Amino acid sequence: MKNKIGLIQMKCSTNADENTRRAAEFVVEAGARGAEIVCLPEMYRTPYFCQNEDAATFDLAEPVPGPSTQALGEAARKAGVSVIIPIFERRAAGLYHNSAVLMDPKGEVQGLYRKMHIPDDPNFYEKYYFTPGDLGFKAFDTHAGRIGILICWDQWYPEAARLTAMRGAMSIFYPTAIGWHPSEKEEFGAAQRDAWRTVQRGHAIANGCYVAAVNRVGLEKPDPNQAGLEFWGTSFVCDPFGVVLAEASTDKEEILVVETDTRRVEDVRRNWPFWRDRRVDVFGELIRRFAD
Amino acid sequence: MKNKIGLIQMKCSTNADENTRRAAEFVVEAGARGAEIVCLPEMYRTPYFCQNEDAATFDLAEPVPGPSTQALGEAARKAGVSVIIPIFERRAAGLYHNSAVLMDPKGEVQGLYRKMHIPDDPNFYEKYYFTPGDLGFKAFDTHAGRIGILICWDQWYPEAARLTAMRGAMSIFYPTAIGWHPSEKEEFGAAQRDAWRTVQRGHAIANGCYVAAVNRVGLEKPDPNQAGLEFWGTSFVCDPFGVVLAEASTDKEEILVVETDTRRVEDVRRNWPFWRDRRVDVFGELIRRFAD
Repeated sequence: MKNKIGLIQMKCSTNADENTRRAAEFVVEAGARGAEIVCLPEMYRTPYFCQNEDAATFDLAEPVPGPSTQALGEAARKAGVSVIIPIFERRAAGLYHNSAVLMDPKGEVQGLYRKMHIPDDPNFYEKYYFTPGDLGFKAFDTHAGRIGILICWDQWYPEAARLTAMRGAMSIFYPTAIGWHPSEKEEFGAAQRDAWRTVQRGHAIANGCYVAAVNRVGLEKPDPNQAGLEFWGTSFVCDPFGVVLAEASTDKEEILVVETDTRRVEDVRRNWPFWRDRRVDVFGELIRRFAD
Repeated sequence: MKNKIGLIQMKCSTNADENTRRAAEFVVEAGARGAEIVCLPEMYRTPYFCQNEDAATFDLAEPVPGPSTQALGEAARKAGVSVIIPIFERRAAGLYHNSAVLMDPKGEVQGLYRKMHIPDDPNFYEKYYFTPGDLGFKAFDTHAGRIGILICWDQWYPEAARLTAMRGAMSIFYPTAIGWHPSEKEEFGAAQRDAWRTVQRGHAIANGCYVAAVNRVGLEKPDPNQAGLEFWGTSFVCDPFGVVLAEASTDKEEILVVETDTRRVEDVRRNWPFWRDRRVDVFGELIRRFAD
């Protein structure tokens, strides 16, 4: 089965309604270019607010259903596509997640994934905002094939990709918000971007599935005294052998529409049959923190 | 702690004693160039005999201790280095493994790893020859730091790298015998080599450790009617961020001597602290074959 997937690499301003309106337009455009499922960047509706810890920021969260599912559900219906909408989810007072809602082409909520691995680093203070997901790793049947969703920090964990692929995902989407600290960019920027791409291509290879990473672009400075973060774009799709099929720029809004093919998954897995031989009899220690 | 590791990329002829003699020379040379631990390619003592299934081939297997540990133990002592010696291990009549012996700088056997993941593909008929390892994933303290050993097909399994790193390995060695089917090289060769390199660099990144892959070179045709296999060399070392520090050619014998630094491991893991956040509470399903 051949399908087309759409990746929306975009800037995210402080105007939530504008972000949603623009995202809806991009979804419709991707659909017009043939995409059957479209993925937005992590928390597309807001700036990457985790650069600071501020209780007032919880006002930016939204429930499911909410403004994003309503507006983008409409776009999904209009375009006849599935949409992956990464949101700042308000689940209850004092309980928030970094989530992604899957909308079907009728504009209905089909599923929900809550980011399992939550980072916390200077300017990425996510542990303050998000409770780690409690829905586990998931795959969903869509009209564009069976897909999985993981979010940003999850992308560094081979276990997350493996468990998602074990549920039958042929493509794994990684909505992301990753960027450079401006002071580090010159010295470490190229290696950071390359490590990010490489580890995800590795997941595609190890699991024999497509990987689609969807990042935002733009320099976001919460206030003039902060250096801010420069999101590095580079949204890409690689095939089950890790071959990069399309890759966006580091600094421009772009829509990628890329064909996936379950026959390619079949061929790669037949010829390099890693799934056949996993030593599951000795993998029990993977639930330990460390084997010391 | 800074250490130097040595990788021996070599051809392996049908003359076992000659292979061992040459390997011993390479070990001494790597030691003279500063290497403190030296790794040979998978089953360095023989051609890659798994291109055919032949019961007579079991004559090539050797016990531990045996000819390899004797000759290379002497080289280890002479050079004052540890040596990783990948062998075709005879454990008992009818029971063989694809193994690697770790020799200490006194020339004594320090440890043994038995390849856990055994492939079987056209011209790589390993399941005929080797019983899957029963020693699990291991790490060893050497005078060049704590290291792990995995062998060839293991390199495609994130679980193997993870479990080895969980045991404290700062560097993971992958003795390997991987090559092109000559008929596939033009169409698929570049992608195959790149997938091989990428997935291993991914292990380095995901685990924050050094990875050293050690492959053989040369075209090996067991008989004139077979196309044979062209081993693609490309032995390399990458650092805990996946940066390739040194990489050998696809077709020449080479010795790589590369510095590792536990401070680099420390820095990378501090700045991108993946170890902190693994969701071990939901990794239990990794012991399943598939989550269907």
